[in-house]
Amino acid sequence: MIIILKPEASQAEIQAIHSAINRFNVIVQDITGENTSMIGLAGDTSAIPRESIERFACVERVMKVQEPYKLAGRRFHPDNTIVESRGSKLGGGHFAVMAGPCSVESEEQILSVAQEIKRSGATFLRGGAFKPRSSPYAFQGLGLDGLELLVVARRKTGLPIVTELMSTEYLDAFARDVDVIQIGARNMQNFTLLREVGGLKKPVLLKRGLSSTIEELLMAAEYVMAAGCKDVMLCERGIRTFETATRNTLDLSAVPVLKEKTHLPIIVDPSHATGRWALVPSMALAAVASGADGLIIEVHNSPETALCDGAQSITPHVFHDLMGRINRVAEAVKAD
Amino acid sequence: MIIILKPEASQAEIQAIHSAINRFNVIVQDITGENTSMIGLAGDTSAIPRESIERFACVERVMKVQEPYKLAGRRFHPDNTIVESRGSKLGGGHFAVMAGPCSVESEEQILSVAQEIKRSGATFLRGGAFKPRSSPYAFQGLGLDGLELLVVARRKTGLPIVTELMSTEYLDAFARDVDVIQIGARNMQNFTLLREVGGLKKPVLLKRGLSSTIEELLMAAEYVMAAGCKDVMLCERGIRTFETATRNTLDLSAVPVLKEKTHLPIIVDPSHATGRWALVPSMALAAVASGADGLIIEVHNSPETALCDGAQSITPHVFHDLMGRINRVAEAVKAD
Amino acid sequence: MIIILKPEASQAEIQAIHSAINRFNVIVQDITGENTSMIGLAGDTSAIPRESIERFACVERVMKVQEPYKLAGRRFHPDNTIVESRGSKLGGGHFAVMAGPCSVESEEQILSVAQEIKRSGATFLRGGAFKPRSSPYAFQGLGLDGLELLVVARRKTGLPIVTELMSTEYLDAFARDVDVIQIGARNMQNFTLLREVGGLKKPVLLKRGLSSTIEELLMAAEYVMAAGCKDVMLCERGIRTFETATRNTLDLSAVPVLKEKTHLPIIVDPSHATGRWALVPSMALAAVASGADGLIIEVHNSPETALCDGAQSITPHVFHDLMGRINRVAEAVKAD
Amino acid sequence: MIIILKPEASQAEIQAIHSAINRFNVIVQDITGENTSMIGLAGDTSAIPRESIERFACVERVMKVQEPYKLAGRRFHPDNTIVESRGSKLGGGHFAVMAGPCSVESEEQILSVAQEIKRSGATFLRGGAFKPRSSPYAFQGLGLDGLELLVVARRKTGLPIVTELMSTEYLDAFARDVDVIQIGARNMQNFTLLREVGGLKKPVLLKRGLSSTIEELLMAAEYVMAAGCKDVMLCERGIRTFETATRNTLDLSAVPVLKEKTHLPIIVDPSHATGRWALVPSMALAAVASGADGLIIEVHNSPETALCDGAQSITPHVFHDLMGRINRVAEAVKAD
Repeated sequence: MIIILKPEASQAEIQAIHSAINRFNVIVQDITGENTSMIGLAGDTSAIPRESIERFACVERVMKVQEPYKLAGRRFHPDNTIVESRGSKLGGGHFAVMAGPCSVESEEQILSVAQEIKRSGATFLRGGAFKPRSSPYAFQGLGLDGLELLVVARRKTGLPIVTELMSTEYLDAFARDVDVIQIGARNMQNFTLLREVGGLKKPVLLKRGLSSTIEELLMAAEYVMAAGCKDVMLCERGIRTFETATRNTLDLSAVPVLKEKTHLPIIVDPSHATGRWALVPSMALAAVASGADGLIIEVHNSPETALCDGAQSITPHVFHDLMGRINRVAEAVKAD
Repeated sequence: MIIILKPEASQAEIQAIHSAINRFNVIVQDITGENTSMIGLAGDTSAIPRESIERFACVERVMKVQEPYKLAGRRFHPDNTIVESRGSKLGGGHFAVMAGPCSVESEEQILSVAQEIKRSGATFLRGGAFKPRSSPYAFQGLGLDGLELLVVARRKTGLPIVTELMSTEYLDAFARDVDVIQIGARNMQNFTLLREVGGLKKPVLLKRGLSSTIEELLMAAEYVMAAGCKDVMLCERGIRTFETATRNTLDLSAVPVLKEKTHLPIIVDPSHATGRWALVPSMALAAVASGADGLIIEVHNSPETALCDGAQSITPHVFHDLMGRINRVAEAVKAD
Repeated sequence: MIIILKPEASQAEIQAIHSAINRFNVIVQDITGENTSMIGLAGDTSAIPRESIERFACVERVMKVQEPYKLAGRRFHPDNTIVESRGSKLGGGHFAVMAGPCSVESEEQILSVAQEIKRSGATFLRGGAFKPRSSPYAFQGLGLDGLELLVVARRKTGLPIVTELMSTEYLDAFARDVDVIQIGARNMQNFTLLREVGGLKKPVLLKRGLSSTIEELLMAAEYVMAAGCKDVMLCERGIRTFETATRNTLDLSAVPVLKEKTHLPIIVDPSHATGRWALVPSMALAAVASGADGLIIEVHNSPETALCDGAQSITPHVFHDLMGRINRVAEAVKAD
Repeated sequence: MIIILKPEASQAEIQAIHSAINRFNVIVQDITGENTSMIGLAGDTSAIPRESIERFACVERVMKVQEPYKLAGRRFHPDNTIVESRGSKLGGGHFAVMAGPCSVESEEQILSVAQEIKRSGATFLRGGAFKPRSSPYAFQGLGLDGLELLVVARRKTGLPIVTELMSTEYLDAFARDVDVIQIGARNMQNFTLLREVGGLKKPVLLKRGLSSTIEELLMAAEYVMAAGCKDVMLCERGIRTFETATRNTLDLSAVPVLKEKTHLPIIVDPSHATGRWALVPSMALAAVASGADGLIIEVHNSPETALCDGAQSITPHVFHDLMGRINRVAEAVKAD
């Protein structure tokens, strides 16, 4: 932590800051130049309330130096985490694809899609039972009935289930039936939910919020991990920017940045990022080339009649072709 | 709703779209020019799944025309809503200020601040018992104990309490003890919470998400209102942009835009928007001049030792001065 | 400047950085803790190439501490700059309004608008002769003919002329005929133009770029001032964000932030910021309350037939009313 | 173009709009529903001043339907443009890499880098002679001397030169010496410069502005093309968002979006987008996988001592390795 002082700071004022910091066990160093004076703090500064220090009249601003996440950070956990569920692995060199419809609509639909994506090489089945919709009047998902249909599809295909939890109300059902619990972008900072889901100690797929920084995403993972969960997968799914040609702006540079900072696997969702199915294949390939550990892709057998997100779903046929290209690019990147 | 067609769309393809729309009871009109063809739909198009229409091969894109909110919209409710709680009114010409500390820390603290802000003219007491913190290691508020202290402060001052609910777990306690239930920016699209809180039919203060559009804010209010609540106050508290000189960018033009679109009262939070106490007074005055119905301001008796948000809290003394200026500007604007 | 080191940095590596910094005359201090090590530099660090330092393998990142602007900064020029032109003053307590049409269209139009806005209390006449248009097929302004009409309007009203220069090609004409030379948002980092215009030593109105930070705006002013100009006015005119309800997002908190950092006058342009005339009055009043030194407002006698920006222009009648309210708010704020 | 009417619009008001539109030769269709009324316009609506129509009291808003670019658009030019310079081709299936230092520093430096990148497979030499720097006190490039050194490097290697033009002042020198004229992000809407450079009819590399939409980028290309130039290459180089972990956010989804809308070649600049050399390789590979026609990469023989942008330059050695991987990914993507 660095405390930048105003040029007019007096010795007495600087002394008052020293006193305030004294009780924290950190190394304190004054750095005094002609027009700039600072106080440098080294050691564990996480307990120092930065905002209160900023409130001292002689302080211009306070800059953080240390990363605020410990469990999610690579510093103390250099080895990549590998998440495994029912034999499907993701992370640490295991590239995997999750696929399935935006929402579960019927047994026939989810079974048919599950079988098709499995045949094409996907190793996780995604599908929404509870849907976060911006309108209270829109289709909200089949709920627990949808969860049941996912379980049926898992029984038939063996694929582990990935589905979103929106409320602590259904924690028990998810603990029992779901393999990978997804926390959606809109709930990335629903801290109560993060803590509760972390307590289940099941794999969690945590989506980046639309306006969340990479550091905030890691802090959200820290919440889940502090509650006991070790298997968190982080998902880049587009951030909100001024550009309106795509629904969101896929921030692929987040992939190598996250790889530096964390040992957790990184997944990319090209479907929600672009919002348009025609852009999904090129962004899926780009994600693979960027070094992502996995993809999550919306596949629907009949996008024209889908109850939600039809515009961004690809058909099983397009998905099948895409999987071939994904594998070739993954191979080309690895070959290095 | 307008369906923009690709120039190469065939008559058969256009006919297929007509068939798909047929079952909805809307007026359909083809508009065909040399390089542009469209289909215009008038009437209640809210049930038409826009995304599925976009999936037709001959469709370039679909544009919405109608506002998707009904209860929150001004169209069917031209008169301004006035929220009243324990005699304090806000909206429809009743300007009001909510003030208090970021978090309740002790009985002495909350009582002293409550009495001071009341003396200065605030008519609602705000204070956090449950705090959403981006780090799991940071102070998370006093919880139910904090709620109790707020109740004590209300008993002494008569001021209605405004405090944030983060989880459905505490719905009963909030229903019993709290006058205005705040939904924080990070939970603006926690749709489960919105529905549950709406069911209590108590006044709700809904904060705009950091990256939420004005339309999304209105749709979140629609969720609360669809559950039965009529008294929703909307709060602009800064959005996330590229500028880092302030914590967020206060979007004051949202005030007149919201005034056009909704009958609900609009509140501005200059403390969270700027993140720096020295900027709070000028932004508070600007908010009043922009036409806001109220302000919510962080006031702390000892910002240097505050357990959270010390940097953005003003002292009771600064608040007192500010209230004088706020009243003068409110008068000057009204004088029109 | 603070150099944050990687935890694995060796003594030899740290020594290499010291050697690289040695030749700059700054105070260097090592700060070494258990998990964080840094090197603090105080004094004039402006000549140290930050990016090269970041390239050392043992460096995690480099943080700037000092402000990079000197002429524009308040540190060495505590007193507010007052710009004066033909008797009209702006800044340092002199509040002023610039008004006029988006583009000069005819002698009759510019004369009539100029006389009306003068009557209402504006003290500068703005009007575009050269128009930056995003389409090459749109009306590009009357050019030098437009300039001549502005000169006629000045002769009749005595109001100093504010108009935009887009190219060094017309420097001589502007030097001769224009009182305040406007640099538009799209040219805020056209460094050649900044230097050339600064060399004229005439008052300059510098608009903030759509995605420029406050620091970049100050650095652009620094370019103008380094070329010899002292009278730079900074103009906040909305930044680009995800919100589409307004053309841009007016960043009013930039006003008090700039007031801290610079002695230059700050102007707000509510017309371009919002893009909709109905929002102009409330944002103009908010700007005054925020502490701006002046406003620049588009006024057109017949917005429905305006050759550009009709949607954001107010009529002389609305402007007249607004001026009354502006004066009342300015009075209320000052009264403090 | 669609004109959305307010629900209270009277027949007389609608008639007034019809009259205003009458003189343009377009097809006009009223669409009237219970709560929505619109007027649809088909045909060439480019001459209709949208903003003036929005000024009519009965109009809620006006939506554009048609693309405003003609020369740059794919609609009337379905075939991909291939740019060729001194035997190097880019676009329409010809993938190419441009490489070289941020700025030309000396004959030795530029010659050595040019030879190395050529050996690794680059087919264009980039290097800055005139540098846009946010500080007037920073190194501004060698200017015409730098241009001369680039010419020397071309003579030795045969590689065509790509370098940035910042001002019309040097048009003649660039016309004579430069093969591909780069317009930087900060000048993307310097319309005077666009027009002048277009008149030279030499290949132009047009970089997307930091906050420019894809449509604005295409309109900037339209300026260049309207002046006579056919060989415009568009360059995605990162946009400005709230994320600070990278200098800008590389918007790779712009690549497939642009591919739909335009026949012009698309280049990606991973160096400026990320601002950190360690992220350049993964973003370069992702760009290839996304379907880009080319890359432009900063390569410096000694980044630690570079006069600018050292932090984002890779060494010739890293570049050589990267070229191997780029070729493998390009092969894998094409193999489809």
